[in-house]
Amino acid sequence: MKKGIAGSAGYGVGKVVIISDAKPEYENRTITDTDAEIKRYDDAVAAFTEKTHAMAEAMKESVGEHNAEILEGHILLLTDPGMDEITKGAIMSGTCAEAAFESTCDMFAGMFQMADDELTRQRATDIGDIKVRMLKILTGTPDVNISEVPAGTILVAEDLTPSMTAGIVKENVAGIITAVGGKTSHSAILARALEIPAVLSVDGIVDKVSDGMTAVVDGCDGICILDPSQEEIEKYQAKREKYLSDKALLEVYRGKDTVTADGVKVHLYGNIGNPEDAKQVAACDGEGVGLFRTEFLFMGASELPSEEEQFRAYKAAAETMEGREVIIRTLDVGGDKDIPYLGLEKEDNPFLGFRAVRYCLQNKDSYRVQLRALLRASAFGDIKIMVPLVTCVDEIRSVKALVKELMAELDAENIAYNKDIQVGAMIETPAASLIADLLAKEADFFSIGTNDLTQYTMAVDRGNAKVAYLYSSYNPAVLRSMKNIIEAANAAGIMVGMCGEAAADPLLIPLLISFGLGEFSVSATSVLATRGTIAKWSKAEADELAAKALSLATETEVAELLKANAR
Amino acid sequence: MKKGIAGSAGYGVGKVVIISDAKPEYENRTITDTDAEIKRYDDAVAAFTEKTHAMAEAMKESVGEHNAEILEGHILLLTDPGMDEITKGAIMSGTCAEAAFESTCDMFAGMFQMADDELTRQRATDIGDIKVRMLKILTGTPDVNISEVPAGTILVAEDLTPSMTAGIVKENVAGIITAVGGKTSHSAILARALEIPAVLSVDGIVDKVSDGMTAVVDGCDGICILDPSQEEIEKYQAKREKYLSDKALLEVYRGKDTVTADGVKVHLYGNIGNPEDAKQVAACDGEGVGLFRTEFLFMGASELPSEEEQFRAYKAAAETMEGREVIIRTLDVGGDKDIPYLGLEKEDNPFLGFRAVRYCLQNKDSYRVQLRALLRASAFGDIKIMVPLVTCVDEIRSVKALVKELMAELDAENIAYNKDIQVGAMIETPAASLIADLLAKEADFFSIGTNDLTQYTMAVDRGNAKVAYLYSSYNPAVLRSMKNIIEAANAAGIMVGMCGEAAADPLLIPLLISFGLGEFSVSATSVLATRGTIAKWSKAEADELAAKALSLATETEVAELLKANAR
Repeated sequence: MKKGIAGSAGYGVGKVVIISDAKPEYENRTITDTDAEIKRYDDAVAAFTEKTHAMAEAMKESVGEHNAEILEGHILLLTDPGMDEITKGAIMSGTCAEAAFESTCDMFAGMFQMADDELTRQRATDIGDIKVRMLKILTGTPDVNISEVPAGTILVAEDLTPSMTAGIVKENVAGIITAVGGKTSHSAILARALEIPAVLSVDGIVDKVSDGMTAVVDGCDGICILDPSQEEIEKYQAKREKYLSDKALLEVYRGKDTVTADGVKVHLYGNIGNPEDAKQVAACDGEGVGLFRTEFLFMGASELPSEEEQFRAYKAAAETMEGREVIIRTLDVGGDKDIPYLGLEKEDNPFLGFRAVRYCLQNKDSYRVQLRALLRASAFGDIKIMVPLVTCVDEIRSVKALVKELMAELDAENIAYNKDIQVGAMIETPAASLIADLLAKEADFFSIGTNDLTQYTMAVDRGNAKVAYLYSSYNPAVLRSMKNIIEAANAAGIMVGMCGEAAADPLLIPLLISFGLGEFSVSATSVLATRGTIAKWSKAEADELAAKALSLATETEVAELLKANAR
Repeated sequence: MKKGIAGSAGYGVGKVVIISDAKPEYENRTITDTDAEIKRYDDAVAAFTEKTHAMAEAMKESVGEHNAEILEGHILLLTDPGMDEITKGAIMSGTCAEAAFESTCDMFAGMFQMADDELTRQRATDIGDIKVRMLKILTGTPDVNISEVPAGTILVAEDLTPSMTAGIVKENVAGIITAVGGKTSHSAILARALEIPAVLSVDGIVDKVSDGMTAVVDGCDGICILDPSQEEIEKYQAKREKYLSDKALLEVYRGKDTVTADGVKVHLYGNIGNPEDAKQVAACDGEGVGLFRTEFLFMGASELPSEEEQFRAYKAAAETMEGREVIIRTLDVGGDKDIPYLGLEKEDNPFLGFRAVRYCLQNKDSYRVQLRALLRASAFGDIKIMVPLVTCVDEIRSVKALVKELMAELDAENIAYNKDIQVGAMIETPAASLIADLLAKEADFFSIGTNDLTQYTMAVDRGNAKVAYLYSSYNPAVLRSMKNIIEAANAAGIMVGMCGEAAADPLLIPLLISFGLGEFSVSATSVLATRGTIAKWSKAEADELAAKALSLATETEVAELLKANAR
């Protein structure tokens, strides 16, 4: 058994096919006719561009636009003037196109590799992918063709590059194992989009398998088993069937209202990271978007995205949701999210630092751009503005004052927007929880962010393994905090949702029903399961369980109670 | 006006005397008779040792043992076998004693300078001090003699080294300004012990003054004024007189009970960092010790202090307080406090990391040593054990179970201890505040740590200047949290104190009286002032003010209300 990262849920059993995308060999020649060599390079770039466009088109249909965009991004990287100039400079000095291009790629990849954030480091993988494919074109080596693997294949690779995966036929691939990549790597995103179980970051996996070997992929627990026993194979096949049938059973909840067993209706929304994800929320029967994280617009760029760019993204999400609610969170930079061009200083305790609304209110010029874009987009759907990391009433007041100013600006410019747009507070700090009644007088709605709320309440960095045993929302302190927040919102008559991971936790859902939560925002793939769990509990039953849970003194006791009462 | 760090409170106006402790010049000679040169070096070490012992003795009387210990530490550093060997090795190879010793010092200072923690970096200053003094002895250069400065002197120096300050006659020094050093530097500790106003870390101050120049030192606000106008001089002389007369007025509270205007009695204790400080608490009329931080025992050492060593320190504090309560906090390592030999990993958010009771419960072997030392010391006074950074009931239960185990051990060994020793919880996380009622069933007493409580509640690193505007205990959220904790403790009938900075804040004291705080633990120098403030408020008046404060929505409004009602 090998441990890795659970990249895409599900279980698969099948035969290994190793996908090795080795760099083709070439002779490092000295060039005398540099003009001809440059033409040879330009031709290869043209061939690359054409081929990649075609792959992106094919991908758009199989796994959605977001993934196709990654491939289109490769064309932009390759044709970047810097990359082009450096390569041609080397050719002019007599280096052959292959060697010139390779050393340029290595230089760029090295630069990206040194970055602090995963997104930039991801670009090093992109460069590696481009390099191998360009060298294949230049040397006339044929491409790996994943589309021809037989049914029941477990794909094993160092990393799945976007170009490799373009041809995947999902019916034939039972699972994916890679040696590198995290939960947000291309491989993970793609595997999830194709609903193929995947385990990533299994150290040295390529050297440990051979073609045709049997393997089990457990994408729920992030483990794989090589050469499994007959017993293990049967166990995992049974798990696979149960997983798929549970998934199919959930289909009965499609198109239904989200109601408790005794008919209390709540909202069930999806969390998204970009406008494209909104399509998945709609496809998974989400009733709206409860959290649109806008960081993607800022993190993927090399400078602040313009008002126009942001406007288009917010409008796209609103239009995809066709009039249903879309709650958009303003920039939540800082903490564990760095955006290099903002030039934020390194902090000793970034989670307790200059982040989210704190940053935005001290950088009003760029905040105005985002708020204006949100206001303009509000003319095209039911957009709400959500302010992250609120700790005091002044912050909500300041944001609302800024929105008011911008409304006057838009009025003067005769630009349409929703005059009744709501501005809500994300409740994710102990301070906000303690003054929820005061904040409820200023904010139009609440959304509880359980990840940060648990982190700050327990004084535990959620990424720190040494103290992970304390990071649980079943802690009596965290449960009480959630209850206080929900009760304060309901007392004030404002909507209260939850967009942290706890909202999709089947063990916690009865407590949230009892506390009076009005909106659950979960990942798109959890929508139907969450609706199913909610349908299994009446308010009275939930109240009974909640009373028991709140009488307990420790996290362990709460967890045991909730597990014993799981539905 | 120049801004610095307020190192020691008070106001001073006087004439500048620059103390330049320049390294004496010497000729870097090649030595042939290395034996004679080694003897010359050994003689210098002997002279240094003798001189330093004498200075330490003199200092013990003027400013207390702790400061004298710094000088004794210099002898240990100088006679360290490593230092001795390296220096003599260089002499053996023909380098003169001065050059050999200087380069050895520079090497050690460089090593210390690279450390992460201020305490180790402080050793670089110590080495610098030793170097200059040894070179003076070797070259026959006379010492700087501060004891001869005239009355009304403002001492200006790059840094005040312990050896320099040994001779200070406090009546003659009106103020101190240095270019380097923080609140915990030797200069600061010494200035406070001598009650001389001091401003530290004034960039490049030595080059900006000349001997005889008039200067103002404002050690309350951390500023100094060079060549002040007549108006400024008069203003600060008036401030100085007011400061001194206020201080004198407080003397009426000496020897009195700490009671509100209507006779409600509370406890007024002091915070200490080592057993020696307990003497100052007693001298300042503190009624006990509300917080004994035990980190000094661990941070000043190169390995875990033995049970015996700890026992002696705890016993000394208990005996100094002569039967009055001494609350000793178990090791609060981590966060901003590193102890290099414990080998803690670097963390992304140390304040949300592996610290305090979390560390102790995962390192029970060393925790047992501390708890055993505390139990043994409890036979010699009224010692209570306080557990820092509690977030859940299990932590208190675990510590109490460990104490019980150790009691059985001591019983078996026939060693005396207080069988009724109390184990209390420091309440400084939002989690502990939220479950104060549950914790009150397990802990024998509470002590509120307002620094951390404010930090975690507001999600603000108290050392981060970018978000300092949010770090205030006047925030409605923090006030409510304090109130909840105090009420929960009183409802359960256990003692509740406060050992954070807020306990000495005259603006906050009426609210704490109203909430029902039973014990105030402040720095020794704040004892009389705190007793004075408490005496000015009746419970009914405090309740009225608290009701008003709790009705306000923002920190600004609370701060204004409290300022307007200051007594």
